Amino acid sequence: MTVKFKNCIILATGENGEFQVLKNCVLCVKDKLIEYIGDEASCPACDEVKDMRGALLMPGLVNAHGHGPMTLLRGVGGGLALQEWLETAIFPIEEKLTPEDVEIGERWAVAEMLAGGTTCVSEMYDFPAYTGRAMTETGIRGNISRVGLSFSDDAEIPAGRFDECVKLVKEWNDPDDRVRAEFCLHSEYLTKESFVRRIAEANRELKKTVNIHVSETKKEHVECKERHNGLTPIQYLNECGILDESTYCAHCVWVEDDDIEIMKEKKATAVYNPSSNCKLASGFAPIDKLRDKGVNTAIGTDGVASNNNLNMFEELHLASLLIKNCERDATKATAEEILKMATINGARAMGRSDTGELKVGKKADIIAVSMDKPHMFPAFSIPDILVYSAQASDVIMTMVDGRILYENGEFKTIDIEKTRADMQSCIVRLYS
Amino acid sequence: MTVKFKNCIILATGENGEFQVLKNCVLCVKDKLIEYIGDEASCPACDEVKDMRGALLMPGLVNAHGHGPMTLLRGVGGGLALQEWLETAIFPIEEKLTPEDVEIGERWAVAEMLAGGTTCVSEMYDFPAYTGRAMTETGIRGNISRVGLSFSDDAEIPAGRFDECVKLVKEWNDPDDRVRAEFCLHSEYLTKESFVRRIAEANRELKKTVNIHVSETKKEHVECKERHNGLTPIQYLNECGILDESTYCAHCVWVEDDDIEIMKEKKATAVYNPSSNCKLASGFAPIDKLRDKGVNTAIGTDGVASNNNLNMFEELHLASLLIKNCERDATKATAEEILKMATINGARAMGRSDTGELKVGKKADIIAVSMDKPHMFPAFSIPDILVYSAQASDVIMTMVDGRILYENGEFKTIDIEKTRADMQSCIVRLYS
Repeated sequence: MTVKFKNCIILATGENGEFQVLKNCVLCVKDKLIEYIGDEASCPACDEVKDMRGALLMPGLVNAHGHGPMTLLRGVGGGLALQEWLETAIFPIEEKLTPEDVEIGERWAVAEMLAGGTTCVSEMYDFPAYTGRAMTETGIRGNISRVGLSFSDDAEIPAGRFDECVKLVKEWNDPDDRVRAEFCLHSEYLTKESFVRRIAEANRELKKTVNIHVSETKKEHVECKERHNGLTPIQYLNECGILDESTYCAHCVWVEDDDIEIMKEKKATAVYNPSSNCKLASGFAPIDKLRDKGVNTAIGTDGVASNNNLNMFEELHLASLLIKNCERDATKATAEEILKMATINGARAMGRSDTGELKVGKKADIIAVSMDKPHMFPAFSIPDILVYSAQASDVIMTMVDGRILYENGEFKTIDIEKTRADMQSCIVRLYS
Repeated sequence: MTVKFKNCIILATGENGEFQVLKNCVLCVKDKLIEYIGDEASCPACDEVKDMRGALLMPGLVNAHGHGPMTLLRGVGGGLALQEWLETAIFPIEEKLTPEDVEIGERWAVAEMLAGGTTCVSEMYDFPAYTGRAMTETGIRGNISRVGLSFSDDAEIPAGRFDECVKLVKEWNDPDDRVRAEFCLHSEYLTKESFVRRIAEANRELKKTVNIHVSETKKEHVECKERHNGLTPIQYLNECGILDESTYCAHCVWVEDDDIEIMKEKKATAVYNPSSNCKLASGFAPIDKLRDKGVNTAIGTDGVASNNNLNMFEELHLASLLIKNCERDATKATAEEILKMATINGARAMGRSDTGELKVGKKADIIAVSMDKPHMFPAFSIPDILVYSAQASDVIMTMVDGRILYENGEFKTIDIEKTRADMQSCIVRLYS
């Protein structure tokens, strides 16, 4: 199956990784891949032609840190401080969640993400096989993991969850490799050292990615140093061998200069979650410094409980604005840099070098953005209009792996009314 | 003419100014006013009934600081630092603007604002009668002003612009009082003391509002103190008598504790412009402290050149997130407080106590927000979902003065394709 997109602007990637704004070109998709970008005259014949007049094609957004099924807890405990929020609002509901709830919550999350142009997501949540099933069925790309937790160095307790983490990674099977299982440590503060070292060892063997929360709050960062002879979370994780393989670290609000050096050397990624960090008042992550020192930086929404949405366009906008103002330098965090954080950098963090840019041979993970509304005109700079003016609702088509999953308000793989009714049933039970 | 809205949630205001979320109620509009909010059974007969199933009615948003015609300069000079941005990117284009350009730019701005739920706007820009004409024709509510500038204490130069400022206030005539002329001082740094004192005197006589930029950048704030024997902009303006009448001050990023006391005593308003302050890296305004000390606080978009949009829902979201994180306190800047900043507080700043809330007897400035999309469900708290999840595009109806100006993508008073073509012609000329 081949499809040709014509009459649109194309935000492609050139040979040296730079964005190219192509007007008067077409883009062709063959099966799951981008087959051609260029003049229409030289374009291969296609089964289907899509006239995208008034739209722009760009790479789908990569949400590099999420907890999708938390749609069932959207905004719960809003306005509470972090610890009280977790203990009085979030944990009591999460304790009641069944695997089926998680699958429904994830399906609803995928609907929101597809409608807003996200084509790839990192999902850290329990019952990952159910999260994964919702992802597989709906067609989105992403990574899943069993949340690595251990509250005791007692051999028995961490071993239990360790086996489950490894089992998921070994047994998860998606023939399309769209949904991939990886390792996860919740954080330094919710895992014991023996557990962390065993995950590191398992990952050295299995060569997956590791997803972890790092230095989200000052409290967590300071207490880690107290617990581990002055080692910060990054330093401690490095000591335990976690950073030896590809690791992406959500938040990184309180990382120190030495941490940044380690992250650079170990090729770890820092995932910025601007909305969530602000809403929970955790602080402003030193993203400009991380990027400047050569650390790969990506963007995520975090869970909707602390966001309260999965709107990546909003995160892009916020990321750029916060970095500029925190650095007191309007020249920082250009729209191009921010777009890379939210596409190719996120894909790289998740071990997916085959997506995140519009380039021949890459996965056809493509979104179309309408340039039609008043707020999108005039567009003197395409990256600027996307980062500073676009709304998630400007997305009019979302394609993953060469398959259109969302188009003009219609979900191709999700029965939205049934899912809403399922969500409603879950909510009645969970909050009764 | 009477209209009844039924089958929707209503975000009304109770006796003590608190928000009330009404389900199973109707709202009736008679001519320009809200006539009734309550049970359908007791509702007066209406000429027209609108079934708003799946939507929420709330007060229209008040954009308390804008420069609408700058749609013609959307994002121009993006990424430049403030001074270079103004001098190399903005001023050279603004010099070429004709009155007709301004009218077209404002019409395009109004389209964007109506589509995003703004019903009232403060417009500070030159050729104000042309801005005002676009506002009058399109039906939006707002204040206009001749930008008060004076570069010399020489009697002749400031007098020229002074006369124009007074002339606009005296001669502007809108029989509906929807568009109202007020006084404006650009700022302390672009006006001379004799001019400031004359505007203060004129306003003591004419009892209008004054719109002014205050302490937007540290440079401006510090240089003011150097110029005026240690007086900050607020202290200097107070000395000149400007704050004796109702004044609203855009930005207030660098105001000091003494300034806040003066603003409180003089009942001045601080208008927060979070996107613009971030994009230009001007700093984070101490909005929580201003509010806490009893100063009226409102929200504005500023011009699209430094935003790059007129999306008030985004400003609400950003305002709340920034205040929480700057204060390192997640309990600050609740959704309710933010909604008030963006409605009744802004209306009050603009001298318009007759709008900004859904209450019987108030102006029928009402918007309908669709609760239908994935990101708007579940909605455990109505204020929270509006501030943290809603997108401007969720607005499905915008009514001003009892007249529907925008509904389901359609502009009732703007020929959007003609205006786009007019914009395009202006742009070709301005940027040639």
